[in-house]
Amino acid sequence: MDLSPDWVVGFTDAEGCFHIRVNPHPEMTCGYQVLPEFVVVQHQRDLQVLHAMKRFFGGGTVRRNHGDRYALRIRRLSVLERVCEFFLAHPLKTRKNVQFRKFRRVVLMMLQGEHLTPEGLARIVRICMQMNSADRPRLREVLHQLQQRIKR
Amino acid sequence: MDLSPDWVVGFTDAEGCFHIRVNPHPEMTCGYQVLPEFVVVQHQRDLQVLHAMKRFFGGGTVRRNHGDRYALRIRRLSVLERVCEFFLAHPLKTRKNVQFRKFRRVVLMMLQGEHLTPEGLARIVRICMQMNSADRPRLREVLHQLQQRIKR
Repeated sequence: MDLSPDWVVGFTDAEGCFHIRVNPHPEMTCGYQVLPEFVVVQHQRDLQVLHAMKRFFGGGTVRRNHGDRYALRIRRLSVLERVCEFFLAHPLKTRKNVQFRKFRRVVLMMLQGEHLTPEGLARIVRICMQMNSADRPRLREVLHQLQQRIKR
Repeated sequence: MDLSPDWVVGFTDAEGCFHIRVNPHPEMTCGYQVLPEFVVVQHQRDLQVLHAMKRFFGGGTVRRNHGDRYALRIRRLSVLERVCEFFLAHPLKTRKNVQFRKFRRVVLMMLQGEHLTPEGLARIVRICMQMNSADRPRLREVLHQLQQRIKR
């Protein structure tokens, strides 16, 4: 199955998700790990569409999500860079484009290593707090911890 | 907002529905009305996408569905004919294409007036019974009624 750029944009406008999680991680310099992820979920009858999207972006993993639903998840930063270049050149038409632009800012900052300093990580957390899927109370707490560390 | 054919295919693969209802209707020759419908539902924040699809297909109505969700519904047979021509020329990539092909068969039969004879309507009901969204027990009852009428 070959996918055209516009088909991928239309399908992502409907089914794609741009998530960023900020998880505690004792081995990271700032105590937190930033995990951006592009996800597409489908019923198992359309598993081949997820594999076609995986080929289209040149990366990601397709696994069972729950029940009869499968997910393509792209987490590797080098592949997310391609995903971001693609959706910058072929803009989403729904309001999901607003989410994408915040997601892309974080991916670009991570490619510059900004998530490895408390100041950069705090900027990333502030962007994440503006995203639809954000767990704001938890992110506020992370931001508070980072600000304590910056003040020291 | 201008939509490209491939975007419309990708978005429909994810969000489009091809429904056919067969409702009792005392004024119809066979006692039933066949109501094929192409539906796309979106959150109100993306209302403009539904209006763009309405313009793309040159028909349909956009109305509130429930809560903060809106739906584009295309029911007029002449517009459904264009919808069917479009998805025949630009095939859906998911298994929804199987549903579409059944839907198209019914629309073509209706354009020939086949739903106005008990024999044609029975053929349409048999196709509807193979569709995902079918209420099979009810359609079996409709088919039974039509077969009684054909035997007379």
